Amino acid sequence: MIEHSGTVTSTGTTSAPEAGVTSLLGVLAYGELMAFFDVARVAEMAPTVPSQQALGALAAREYSVFEQLSARLRELGADPAEAMQPFHEPFDNWHARITPADWHEGLMKIYAGSAIATDFYRELTDVLDPATADMIRRALPDDEQAAIARTALLEAIAQDERLAGRLALLGRRMMGEALSQAQLVALINDDLLDLIMDRGTGQGFDLVGFQQLLTRLGEKHTRRMAALGLDA
Amino acid sequence: MIEHSGTVTSTGTTSAPEAGVTSLLGVLAYGELMAFFDVARVAEMAPTVPSQQALGALAAREYSVFEQLSARLRELGADPAEAMQPFHEPFDNWHARITPADWHEGLMKIYAGSAIATDFYRELTDVLDPATADMIRRALPDDEQAAIARTALLEAIAQDERLAGRLALLGRRMMGEALSQAQLVALINDDLLDLIMDRGTGQGFDLVGFQQLLTRLGEKHTRRMAALGLDA
Repeated sequence: MIEHSGTVTSTGTTSAPEAGVTSLLGVLAYGELMAFFDVARVAEMAPTVPSQQALGALAAREYSVFEQLSARLRELGADPAEAMQPFHEPFDNWHARITPADWHEGLMKIYAGSAIATDFYRELTDVLDPATADMIRRALPDDEQAAIARTALLEAIAQDERLAGRLALLGRRMMGEALSQAQLVALINDDLLDLIMDRGTGQGFDLVGFQQLLTRLGEKHTRRMAALGLDA
Repeated sequence: MIEHSGTVTSTGTTSAPEAGVTSLLGVLAYGELMAFFDVARVAEMAPTVPSQQALGALAAREYSVFEQLSARLRELGADPAEAMQPFHEPFDNWHARITPADWHEGLMKIYAGSAIATDFYRELTDVLDPATADMIRRALPDDEQAAIARTALLEAIAQDERLAGRLALLGRRMMGEALSQAQLVALINDDLLDLIMDRGTGQGFDLVGFQQLLTRLGEKHTRRMAALGLDA
């Protein structure tokens, strides 16, 4: 279904299976396309033109990363739409279940929701070939995104204490949903599982290592919630 | 409220009143920001990843034009958010009244709705100083946007004849709403009216000329509808 050209060798030595890399880029690209739609929708909910502009700029940047990932897929001889296709379901589930009711919940989804995925992708770069790892690191959002959302959330919570409880609940729901949908991503794609998990190849996480990774994701989420004065 | 610096002279000789230019840039910038949200929403409704990608690219381009117009406002010593503020109402009215119910209506809003505004802005460049006119011409969308939407609409109409009636009706509503909201834009802003209409300055459209402009907008709209096989 997904074709591979020999051009992957031009990125240096790669011990990671090509099919797994194509799948991982497909996950990242579809995630970015959905994040673009998401951030654009939150930008539209923003109460002032300067905040619409700040979030609009973030959305435009997500789109540009999506284009970079699509271009990389084409370089590897894959059709981007085909590479993304298997991952529609988990991402569509995530976005359908975590639908911001208002501007503050939208900010929270950007601040705490996208960050869970970013932490996960950053962990994965440890087990990938250097060229792919480097491209993924460059595609991940910088701290500016989190900073914009955090500042606006702290202001909003300071003005309305009841908001804290609602956002804390949303944060917990997002962590749970993220883990469920990530499992679905892994389960539906054997190539991806081969890339990430050591199932006899000597490359990737073993079960203990993967458990530790999940623990780290939880700890980082807890710290992000604490930065807003919220319990995780 | 809106400050003007002397930097406008760096763009060459300008006979147009600066306040009017600031207002016009405010109209264009707010229009682009709203168009960005609009196209991103239509992109999200698109049925396939390649069409999501094509419209996503259009949305990202609208955002970039918005940023260029904001930068130009800052160069002129104006605060972009303030320059846009008076025009929230007519644009918000337009978007609230023309809300696409589905992907095809969304395409129609991009194809026929945005085009009415683009035709209007292009006509205005005839009465503006060359530097501002040139910047506005460069900011206007190229034909690619219309081509993407037209191709998709022709395919959809070919597959479902009942769609033609619904889209023809939407086209008529859009033309009517565009004229109403454009009048509101002009009425709420005297500087803009001074820029566009000749009210004793010898610069701008006289009433007959403006009536002819409106006739040309209507003719162009009719031709666009006819290109889809629809009556205007």
